[in-house]
Amino acid sequence: MQNYKVIIQYDGTDYHGWQVQPNRVTIQGELTRILSQLDDRPVTVYGAGRTDAGVHAEGQVANFWLEHRFSSRELRDAMNGNLRRDIRILDALALDDAFNARTSAKLKNYRYRIWNADVGNPFLSRYVYQYRKRLDIDEMHEAAAALVGAHDFSAFTPAQSDAEDHFRTLQKLDLERDGEIVSITAAASGFLRYMVRTIAGTLIDVGRGRRSAKSVRLALESRMRSNAGPTAPACGLTLMRVDY
Amino acid sequence: MQNYKVIIQYDGTDYHGWQVQPNRVTIQGELTRILSQLDDRPVTVYGAGRTDAGVHAEGQVANFWLEHRFSSRELRDAMNGNLRRDIRILDALALDDAFNARTSAKLKNYRYRIWNADVGNPFLSRYVYQYRKRLDIDEMHEAAAALVGAHDFSAFTPAQSDAEDHFRTLQKLDLERDGEIVSITAAASGFLRYMVRTIAGTLIDVGRGRRSAKSVRLALESRMRSNAGPTAPACGLTLMRVDY
Repeated sequence: MQNYKVIIQYDGTDYHGWQVQPNRVTIQGELTRILSQLDDRPVTVYGAGRTDAGVHAEGQVANFWLEHRFSSRELRDAMNGNLRRDIRILDALALDDAFNARTSAKLKNYRYRIWNADVGNPFLSRYVYQYRKRLDIDEMHEAAAALVGAHDFSAFTPAQSDAEDHFRTLQKLDLERDGEIVSITAAASGFLRYMVRTIAGTLIDVGRGRRSAKSVRLALESRMRSNAGPTAPACGLTLMRVDY
Repeated sequence: MQNYKVIIQYDGTDYHGWQVQPNRVTIQGELTRILSQLDDRPVTVYGAGRTDAGVHAEGQVANFWLEHRFSSRELRDAMNGNLRRDIRILDALALDDAFNARTSAKLKNYRYRIWNADVGNPFLSRYVYQYRKRLDIDEMHEAAAALVGAHDFSAFTPAQSDAEDHFRTLQKLDLERDGEIVSITAAASGFLRYMVRTIAGTLIDVGRGRRSAKSVRLALESRMRSNAGPTAPACGLTLMRVDY
């Protein structure tokens, strides 16, 4: 058996997220299906990040064991030949047995994009959250600073979360405006469910003047979900890269 | 009655082109429908370029007369509020009666994009033609040079074309590679049906080594459609700008 690592791009619009679910089309489900055909046996696919329904990936990472031996190019092309065009394998390579896409991951990098203009963009509407009123990036930046570092992020995940603990270390939380696009980039070894989207929704509330930068620190410290802002829509979120 | 000019962006994927057709959803049809509601009477919409089914626009231009008076912002927002998100009005302005989007147009600028890489791009698949084999831009450039200027373009439009004459003046036909994307840009006061896509399909044939640059000149001179290359898929084409 050979352990393979693949780097995957997908437009998540038409999928019920990464994780296999009965009677739902998911990214993991599609990969499992085509790899099991390719290897003539049930293949298990391990993913770095369980992206939610509608969330995209520029660089999701997965691994799996196959009985058949493939060159990088063979495996990449065989997979792409059997996947819909909204999922693409960018790269495939054979790795030693110790590699696991989830447990070996050091840092996951997400980006949340807002199309911040009077008029929406028809070509990006699947990939951004459209918000008209001009966002105050300086205020958002100040609010973001309070979230960087090691914290209990209970305020930024559903109260009924099944994670064992809610401590996570946010290595980076940056904001940038490029023309009409405001990007929020976040990096951590792990995130809680909806964490990036709830951070984005809370920062958007700050940017639109609905809450103060200081209230974000207080929400974090309260560890109560009700003190943070709304969960921003899935379409704006993309898993950009996983570092090992 | 006031004459209004609008600049329109659209993702043409889900439309049967610009022009109104019975029982088909078209861009002109959608604009006609919402403007007739807005003005409480049947409104006629004149467009600069009749884009085909699946073709996109970054800067299509149209005009129409309304009884109601609107500020630019009011008209833009009222239209955007009633259109699907894949059609956006970028700008609206009141103009004198002499302005007609079609007959006043001086130059139409189209872009044909090819995603030229081993692996397709899931985020651009609606907006580019995906072709794997590396295209030879230098050869394509040489072939393109033969097409610039005033010619009978019969070889680049269907034989059963209903245009009165097939003489057009191609002001510009440029090629550029930017990473994985090869762009063909074409500018003329008017184009024949499928002309840009047939030029693109013929240049792609040159770029992939299937025909010589010289054969393109011979095809043009022959004025026979069968001597040019295939009509490239609609999804790669975008009406970029109309100059007045």
